[in-house]
Amino acid sequence: MFKTTIIGLLALLLVTAAGCGSSSKPPESGADLRLGTSSAGPYDTVYQVSTINALLQGVYDGDVSCGQLQRQGNLGLGTFDNLDGEMVVLDGQVWQVRADGTVHPAAEATETPFATVVNFRADETRTLAGAASLAELQRQLDGFRSNPNLFYAFRIDGRFPYLKTRSVPRQERPFPPLAEVTGQQPTFEFQNVAGTLVGFWCPAYVQNLNVPGYHLHFISNDRQIGGHLLECQLESGAGQVDALPQFHLMTLQNEDFGKADLAGDRSRETEKVEK
Amino acid sequence: MFKTTIIGLLALLLVTAAGCGSSSKPPESGADLRLGTSSAGPYDTVYQVSTINALLQGVYDGDVSCGQLQRQGNLGLGTFDNLDGEMVVLDGQVWQVRADGTVHPAAEATETPFATVVNFRADETRTLAGAASLAELQRQLDGFRSNPNLFYAFRIDGRFPYLKTRSVPRQERPFPPLAEVTGQQPTFEFQNVAGTLVGFWCPAYVQNLNVPGYHLHFISNDRQIGGHLLECQLESGAGQVDALPQFHLMTLQNEDFGKADLAGDRSRETEKVEK
Repeated sequence: MFKTTIIGLLALLLVTAAGCGSSSKPPESGADLRLGTSSAGPYDTVYQVSTINALLQGVYDGDVSCGQLQRQGNLGLGTFDNLDGEMVVLDGQVWQVRADGTVHPAAEATETPFATVVNFRADETRTLAGAASLAELQRQLDGFRSNPNLFYAFRIDGRFPYLKTRSVPRQERPFPPLAEVTGQQPTFEFQNVAGTLVGFWCPAYVQNLNVPGYHLHFISNDRQIGGHLLECQLESGAGQVDALPQFHLMTLQNEDFGKADLAGDRSRETEKVEK
Repeated sequence: MFKTTIIGLLALLLVTAAGCGSSSKPPESGADLRLGTSSAGPYDTVYQVSTINALLQGVYDGDVSCGQLQRQGNLGLGTFDNLDGEMVVLDGQVWQVRADGTVHPAAEATETPFATVVNFRADETRTLAGAASLAELQRQLDGFRSNPNLFYAFRIDGRFPYLKTRSVPRQERPFPPLAEVTGQQPTFEFQNVAGTLVGFWCPAYVQNLNVPGYHLHFISNDRQIGGHLLECQLESGAGQVDALPQFHLMTLQNEDFGKADLAGDRSRETEKVEK
């Protein structure tokens, strides 16, 4: 939001300066607009909407739009109002992977009850070796991390001989807890897909707020398949990491969030719904 | 930081616009500088340096300066490097209440290993009735809060027939845990003081990160006495509240923070050191 304003002001400044001595010439329309929408929030900061404990309890009605989210980060993951599928944010585009397996670009006005994004700027890129499982891949990613009390964002572009993802079906009120929904989640298995994994590694001390450890979502290069990653094999790939010393939590302003019991250790429940 | 930039750009924009058609007139120097330094961060956001669990474990060496802190908020509390006293931030000034009871303005370069500040903008101001104890005062403050899952900042200007505060003495390495230090903390009792309480009410779900419930520090109107509030009586006062939907955590970039065990429930230890 701030960066948008800064870039907008810069554009205005250039236009104003350019306008000096040639007041009859109108400023080029559109230039500032394009600059404005290229913004994706401050660097080195995890931007999070709501908390995992709220989502676990069925707070599926958000008040932050995808448009707002795109101004805070260009890479990340989450879900949509009414738990209507898995969110994948890549290169500034928000994708919605519905429970029927279809993938759509999300509308700017669509809201999210839980999302985590970052204005991704890789600190390091490494070629990844093949991995026979998600656990093996995660052990490679462990090598990118030196500090157990920092946040890390990951982007892995590669070719996957095998992938298993899930999505979640749209819910209606009264909303059931997330563990009830994921107990019947649709899962998808794919062979030989090229695509991108995006996500985060979060420290254990945010266990009430986000998912400790790795949390990755997938989208294919052709944007036809994706979802919350459950298992994978990697043939080869490029791994990028961004270490994030700052964590910004945006609470929800609605009654559901205000009424939820958000304290207490729900890490077992988190593990159940994520794995 | 962003707001500073925005205001700086706005000033530059005005200067540039004013310069049109009168290029011989130099811009007024200092105007943008003054505007720039009046910034105190975004509104409605708790800005926090490090976590309470890190402080409990003796992570007393910070890497955020008071100058940086002042650019994020103008009201708040915390401590200083080496646990050298209690911090009170009021009207943009950072005050240091040392263990000998003396109060000094903190230098911009002095660093903090734990602090919580806000760019305070009152949502509501109420006249407070007399209170025979801190518990009674807190029951009045409860009336300002409608949402148990939001953050709140408070400012209470009043006359206090009785006040009990504490400070903490500067530590040297190897740093002992905070509970060891506060076990021998110097406390101060005062009668009939006019001054200001500043602080926060935090929701239970940030128990690993900050102090759940109320956390208040005091400074007198003459800036001669202050500290971490342990007990008080209020004769009369004005209470201001600012509801804060956003929470921004800045981790420390040093080895001590990286090595600390920051997960786990230390709420009993927190209560012990705060009360």
